[in-house]
Amino acid sequence: MSCDFLKLANAGIQGLMPYQPGKPVEEVARELNLDPDSIVKLASNENPHGPGQQALNAIQRELTELARYPDGSGYRLKAALAQKLGLSPRQITLGNGSNDLLDLVGRCWLAPGRNAVYSEYAFAVYPITTQAAGAAHKVVPARDWGHDLNAMAQAIDENTGVVFIANPNNPTGTWLSEKQLREFMAQVPEQVLVVLDEAYFEYVEESVYPDGVALLQDYPNLLVCRTFSKAYGLASLRVGYSLSSVGIAETLNRVRQPFNVNSLALEAALAALGDEAYLQQSVITNKAGMLQLETAFRELGLNYIPSVGNFICVDVGDAEAVNQALLKEGVIVRPLRPYRMNNHLRISIGLPEENQRFIDALKKVL
Amino acid sequence: MSCDFLKLANAGIQGLMPYQPGKPVEEVARELNLDPDSIVKLASNENPHGPGQQALNAIQRELTELARYPDGSGYRLKAALAQKLGLSPRQITLGNGSNDLLDLVGRCWLAPGRNAVYSEYAFAVYPITTQAAGAAHKVVPARDWGHDLNAMAQAIDENTGVVFIANPNNPTGTWLSEKQLREFMAQVPEQVLVVLDEAYFEYVEESVYPDGVALLQDYPNLLVCRTFSKAYGLASLRVGYSLSSVGIAETLNRVRQPFNVNSLALEAALAALGDEAYLQQSVITNKAGMLQLETAFRELGLNYIPSVGNFICVDVGDAEAVNQALLKEGVIVRPLRPYRMNNHLRISIGLPEENQRFIDALKKVL
Repeated sequence: MSCDFLKLANAGIQGLMPYQPGKPVEEVARELNLDPDSIVKLASNENPHGPGQQALNAIQRELTELARYPDGSGYRLKAALAQKLGLSPRQITLGNGSNDLLDLVGRCWLAPGRNAVYSEYAFAVYPITTQAAGAAHKVVPARDWGHDLNAMAQAIDENTGVVFIANPNNPTGTWLSEKQLREFMAQVPEQVLVVLDEAYFEYVEESVYPDGVALLQDYPNLLVCRTFSKAYGLASLRVGYSLSSVGIAETLNRVRQPFNVNSLALEAALAALGDEAYLQQSVITNKAGMLQLETAFRELGLNYIPSVGNFICVDVGDAEAVNQALLKEGVIVRPLRPYRMNNHLRISIGLPEENQRFIDALKKVL
Repeated sequence: MSCDFLKLANAGIQGLMPYQPGKPVEEVARELNLDPDSIVKLASNENPHGPGQQALNAIQRELTELARYPDGSGYRLKAALAQKLGLSPRQITLGNGSNDLLDLVGRCWLAPGRNAVYSEYAFAVYPITTQAAGAAHKVVPARDWGHDLNAMAQAIDENTGVVFIANPNNPTGTWLSEKQLREFMAQVPEQVLVVLDEAYFEYVEESVYPDGVALLQDYPNLLVCRTFSKAYGLASLRVGYSLSSVGIAETLNRVRQPFNVNSLALEAALAALGDEAYLQQSVITNKAGMLQLETAFRELGLNYIPSVGNFICVDVGDAEAVNQALLKEGVIVRPLRPYRMNNHLRISIGLPEENQRFIDALKKVL
């Protein structure tokens, strides 16, 4: 006889679905009998340039110290971020990717009896962290594929602990202006934490797009999340950070694991932060690639959702079928059925030749 | 006006103390005006050999993929562990260090109204994960600095979710035999999860020391935790694993962050697992270093706690004062006041010359 430990687990956890990781290149190659080197992966919003040289150099310097524990305080990375952003290091919390920070927020301010407010089509981690904490979900219908902030403000009630906002949003690429955000924040009770997820903010060039850091001084209940996984090209290493009031940061720092960020991530992120040329090139490549895809979609008569991220959603009809056909052509993109966007594929912006491979394959399979 | 978000946080979290990381070499050097290269750190139970060459080679091969997300399933590392241990990959959960797994256990099976049973002088993460989950602490007085398993079995009640056992124990280095463990498990109700933390098991050579893996088939409520941070020399990278029934593993896998283990950790751990020569050398160095320290303690007339780990606790009287004097000599060890062992220092076993530096400094300051 043995017990069912899933049934013995806390209630929220029982309702979690085991995460299904995306298909690695190796697996697609094996299943479809393709050469792994011929496969183009535009599925995970990764930086197509690969890591920057300064980050690589920093890793090489750190390799002799691999048997030592990381600096649990992240002293030098936090100091560099604080200086760059004009904040105190005490306002910064480092995470094992920004996923870690979203998860910590859930552990601190969500629980059974409380709820989280987030938008339809918002990033998949918000429902997961809400569920893991055993809290209730208040999912607000999207407006033009983006956040309906007025409806989200209306959805807040006395049991709301956290509101999650992605700007720009993943997977849809929509974005909110500073004016919209400020009007929203004015309606949020001061005891409700607003998480502003800016994982893709480095790509955005719109003039009225807000800088979360500038909003912090006006809204003590705001937490801004950022990551080194996208524009900084370090997804494999897992490092993100949050910016907030000191009180929020100190609460998160109590709960985070003492060595949650590994040493190579700390060193590579520090180097990447100073590598302006790499960041600039990433943004330029992204802009050109976005134009390349938009042009192709227009030529093909396909509707797409205008995006300011490093990805774009396009309506291809039966997205699952098109996705399967693309896989056979050696192109991996992301079908959005898990987001209930059954007609859409999300394509991460790649290098020009990768984008062209996708466009050619799409023309062939449609 | 702004709210106190610590007071708004879940109850257990408010009772957590912010983690105070140990002093990095750089900081000690700066404070005491010492050359960082002259400092010997024997404070964190790290492998003094540094990383193995096979792990380093694996990292070099993976660097081109740094902008890609890790394999969230840890497919190849889990397959290698499963083969080595004679288990199914479905029984394995990977963690961002074994700390991650201890934390996940708390999130799954501890909550307000439940309690965790652990021993006095046991690893500091057990009270932290218990507190973070808002559960009650049942701390069982130690016996000869080790676990009193009979008293721990008695402490289990209807609200007990988890029992934490470290074998060998950190910081005291004591250990439990297979017979003792089996007698204990026979007394534990089947719905109580027993976490057997084997972070240091690779160092143990006692013939009646149990192999947690062999116990798994007899006790479906057992979870064994292990790490690559100690004998495998990869503390900086953060990778640990747990072994359990499939049901327990699937529950943990629901809650863990999808990309909780970074790519370089996955590759380095896989390589380290196959590097038998490195592991053997680590164990040999440790045995010799342990003898070196024990001999010195006997010569100095100091009582020490016999240890089977890669560290040893010695009674030096006023340990804080001795620690401060050792720091001035450029030797970092661990005073155990946080464990209420005010007379003890814990010394990690280093290379012969590092151990000698410590011994010489100790003789000088006593």
